[in-house]
Amino acid sequence: MQAMDIEKVNSMDFGEFVDVFGNVIERCPLIAAAVWSQRPFSNLEDLEKHFFDFIDALPQSGREGILRCHPDLAGRELQQGTLSAESRREQSGAGLASLDADERLRLAELNAQYRARFGFPFVLAARRSHRAAVPRELARRLRCPPAQELRTALAEVKKIGHLRLADLLGTPPARL
Amino acid sequence: MQAMDIEKVNSMDFGEFVDVFGNVIERCPLIAAAVWSQRPFSNLEDLEKHFFDFIDALPQSGREGILRCHPDLAGRELQQGTLSAESRREQSGAGLASLDADERLRLAELNAQYRARFGFPFVLAARRSHRAAVPRELARRLRCPPAQELRTALAEVKKIGHLRLADLLGTPPARL
Repeated sequence: MQAMDIEKVNSMDFGEFVDVFGNVIERCPLIAAAVWSQRPFSNLEDLEKHFFDFIDALPQSGREGILRCHPDLAGRELQQGTLSAESRREQSGAGLASLDADERLRLAELNAQYRARFGFPFVLAARRSHRAAVPRELARRLRCPPAQELRTALAEVKKIGHLRLADLLGTPPARL
Repeated sequence: MQAMDIEKVNSMDFGEFVDVFGNVIERCPLIAAAVWSQRPFSNLEDLEKHFFDFIDALPQSGREGILRCHPDLAGRELQQGTLSAESRREQSGAGLASLDADERLRLAELNAQYRARFGFPFVLAARRSHRAAVPRELARRLRCPPAQELRTALAEVKKIGHLRLADLLGTPPARL
């Protein structure tokens, strides 16, 4: 997709807007569809702020719900080819599509422990990570208190969203 | 899919739950994913109440966002075969898949007027309607004040959700 400027974004009807921005927050087109109500946007930061404000205003169940719409890293959906296009690129870019069987098994075990402990999947901005770092980070976060881990996971959702928005608008992403 | 009892529902992990209930609210798996936080559920009414309470607690932009995740009736997605399975069944059941070219055009014009006026698509529980009634109802609602129409449209979202939940749980739907 070709990058676009903010005037182009502001001229979109809701159908176009949801088509383009519907997966800024993974599998939550509802959020882009809600953000459209806040147009016009002055720039990328302003657009992004509306996505993040919407997330922050949700009750805890809704913030957990966002996390539950994310796939496991190097999980069943990567194997089966049912990831969203963005997730597939991000996971492949981090080397998670080329793990050997032992690495995949180790990650599957950690993912299962994480889901059982927190009630949502392990979410990480894979483009800011790498296959060797993922299981270390997962093992570290598995030991965090639940309230802290919910905050950490939502911060990762926002990093992912920032990178996806920067791609769509052809803007260099901020250092995160 | 086979109907299930509430014990089965309460035993689901979030992945299964979102797989099964993710489209109770059209293209808003976030809502099912949030509702999972509220388990265990005592029965269909209790489960449904959590879906509806989540919707009602959203800011106006979020409630409008839910509507914007719905397809047009007898629109492009029906033609192109990209509707969700539930929508396809509901629209076909109401006879909307077998309109002639004039009826389709008339509905497309009304849908476009409605979207332009309200900023969301015309949503109607098609299983409670029929191809001949749809354009009449659309033309009627097109003249309603926006605040009233938002309420009407969300009541239709809940009717659709009620019918989908009743299907999944194998319960006769309430008279709506």
